[in-house]
Amino acid sequence: MPTIVLSLGKRSYEIHAANASLDRLGAIIHRHHMEGRAALVTDSNVAPLFADNARHSLEEAGYNVSLHVIDAGEASKSLPCVEQLASELAAHGHDRTSFIVALGGGVVGDLAGFAAATYYRGIPFVQVPTTVMAQVDSSVGGKTAVNISAGKNLVGAFHQPALVVIDPTTLATLPPRIVSEGMAEMVKHAAIRDPEMLSEFAGLSREIELGFSLATMEKLPALLARNVAIKARIVEEDERETTGVRAFLNFGHTIGHGIEASLPYGALLHGEAVSLGMRSALALSERRAGLAHAESLRILRVLHELGLPLTLPEGIRVETVLEKTAADKKFRGGAIRFVLLKAPGEPVLSGEVTQDDLREAVELLKTQPFV
Amino acid sequence: MPTIVLSLGKRSYEIHAANASLDRLGAIIHRHHMEGRAALVTDSNVAPLFADNARHSLEEAGYNVSLHVIDAGEASKSLPCVEQLASELAAHGHDRTSFIVALGGGVVGDLAGFAAATYYRGIPFVQVPTTVMAQVDSSVGGKTAVNISAGKNLVGAFHQPALVVIDPTTLATLPPRIVSEGMAEMVKHAAIRDPEMLSEFAGLSREIELGFSLATMEKLPALLARNVAIKARIVEEDERETTGVRAFLNFGHTIGHGIEASLPYGALLHGEAVSLGMRSALALSERRAGLAHAESLRILRVLHELGLPLTLPEGIRVETVLEKTAADKKFRGGAIRFVLLKAPGEPVLSGEVTQDDLREAVELLKTQPFV
Repeated sequence: MPTIVLSLGKRSYEIHAANASLDRLGAIIHRHHMEGRAALVTDSNVAPLFADNARHSLEEAGYNVSLHVIDAGEASKSLPCVEQLASELAAHGHDRTSFIVALGGGVVGDLAGFAAATYYRGIPFVQVPTTVMAQVDSSVGGKTAVNISAGKNLVGAFHQPALVVIDPTTLATLPPRIVSEGMAEMVKHAAIRDPEMLSEFAGLSREIELGFSLATMEKLPALLARNVAIKARIVEEDERETTGVRAFLNFGHTIGHGIEASLPYGALLHGEAVSLGMRSALALSERRAGLAHAESLRILRVLHELGLPLTLPEGIRVETVLEKTAADKKFRGGAIRFVLLKAPGEPVLSGEVTQDDLREAVELLKTQPFV
Repeated sequence: MPTIVLSLGKRSYEIHAANASLDRLGAIIHRHHMEGRAALVTDSNVAPLFADNARHSLEEAGYNVSLHVIDAGEASKSLPCVEQLASELAAHGHDRTSFIVALGGGVVGDLAGFAAATYYRGIPFVQVPTTVMAQVDSSVGGKTAVNISAGKNLVGAFHQPALVVIDPTTLATLPPRIVSEGMAEMVKHAAIRDPEMLSEFAGLSREIELGFSLATMEKLPALLARNVAIKARIVEEDERETTGVRAFLNFGHTIGHGIEASLPYGALLHGEAVSLGMRSALALSERRAGLAHAESLRILRVLHELGLPLTLPEGIRVETVLEKTAADKKFRGGAIRFVLLKAPGEPVLSGEVTQDDLREAVELLKTQPFV
């Protein structure tokens, strides 16, 4: 099965991608010499689908397992939920010798990961992501966090998983819109490091509505592995986002976050906001980093084919997006630090994007339909 | 001024001890090249005494400072207080480029330290401990945590401070009982690594009730530095308590925690419970590790002279202490892992303490007055 190694010295780990790997989860974890009791954390959407399967597999491999089901949804990424989960872990007798298995999408991974980072000051955990977004992005890299009223992901920890197990067959249960939004991050990875991969997405896009064909399913493990490897290489270079390399992963996210923050939660999915953010970032890249218009267009077409939005929903004001985008950014001498593409596969951290540039790049989403 | 270096590669830091160092806090921090805005965190007891002083010193050194005052007391070591503090930090515009200054005793250090470990997934912090307990023990070593209803310190992080600044003159404001309880940890450090230091405590004990003399104040920085250096050397050897060396710091704490857990919170101070726990541990050391009775007696006399308790308060049942002591311990083949002394300065991790041994060592605290 395709295996990526993320090398971070003592914190190195493997990322496995294989169909039906969930059925062999216990054996895979056991092969990685994980000891102690297992706390299986999942949410109310995923539990009915995969919890029994995961639990049995762990038990067959000899693990003593407790199951912890959080409410599905972003509201569970909170400190009260951390306290609730930690209390449950204690009630089940888990201590520093136990480990957590996070089975689910980004919310489960972030919450269970933060619980693993802090329970007894840190215990190991295994990521078993069940959405495209989690499989190629959030399960890898060690960022865990919860939200507080003052902001998203404001309280968290860097805590690398001990292992990531990706089972692409879990994607078959997802609504098409959730698959599409995850693909936005795949396109982002391809755009910043592996432009040849862009051509792979055309085939997928036709199948999102109906479900992936058997032929596609067979290709998915390798494709997901190749995609997540892009993130793995970047995390290796800059684990804690200090050198600037990891910032490349924010391509499309600066304005994307501004758009998300301008809307009631859930009006747009994260990946949908990132798709819009990438359109703006591509326009800025043409203006400030010399990206060829044809290359920009090629990436936009892929997003469009994947069913991702490229224009702002009704009722959202450009002014609000600009405010929210600037809220967590520092303008230095009138310019903002921004990830742009010189060419597909060649991101740069630009210091040349002005407030006027930004306004134009957001207005574009309002005024120019993409066809 | 006496300076200890705690060497942990990239996480190394200095521990300064000097009278009136609080007045030069800003300059000392500045000399350590700390950049960004400062969030000064303290509690409602310490704020009226030292917050202005610390703040002015930081501002004089050019730092932009916000002040955050938590309620004094153990109840503030909670996740809701972490959320409140993080929200205040965000409201004051602090981001990943800011740092925290924790000014106070163990509660402030643990809460502010955990906030520093998790705000934006980790920002630097400076410990400015103002109790004996915090100066020689809790401010050093990177253990931060909060309590949840299921247990004390169950949610936390290892997050080493960037600097520790000890000002012994802050001790002048403490009630004698609080000074004494901190001395229990000093005696523990001396007992496990530096028995010659035991003779230094006799002089101190006579001054605790009336306040330290000028001559004593002049000696304190060097004595505190020598004492905290014991902990620093142990943390260097075993930062995350994985090899067993850091477990030596638990001398007196196994039964001590059991006693604390048997009483309503605050009935005994932590250091007082540790004093009782050390008496039991010394008895066990005589029985199971060959500690000479005269050596045991020497350490007990020091604790007694420092005004620390060596017999259980009325109304506490031996049975309860035994239950609470065993609650977080695993008996393997009928024996518990226990830190004993072969001789002063020579701790061992023993696997030979039985449940009967334990009962006898706790009953001793009930039945045999120390005179």
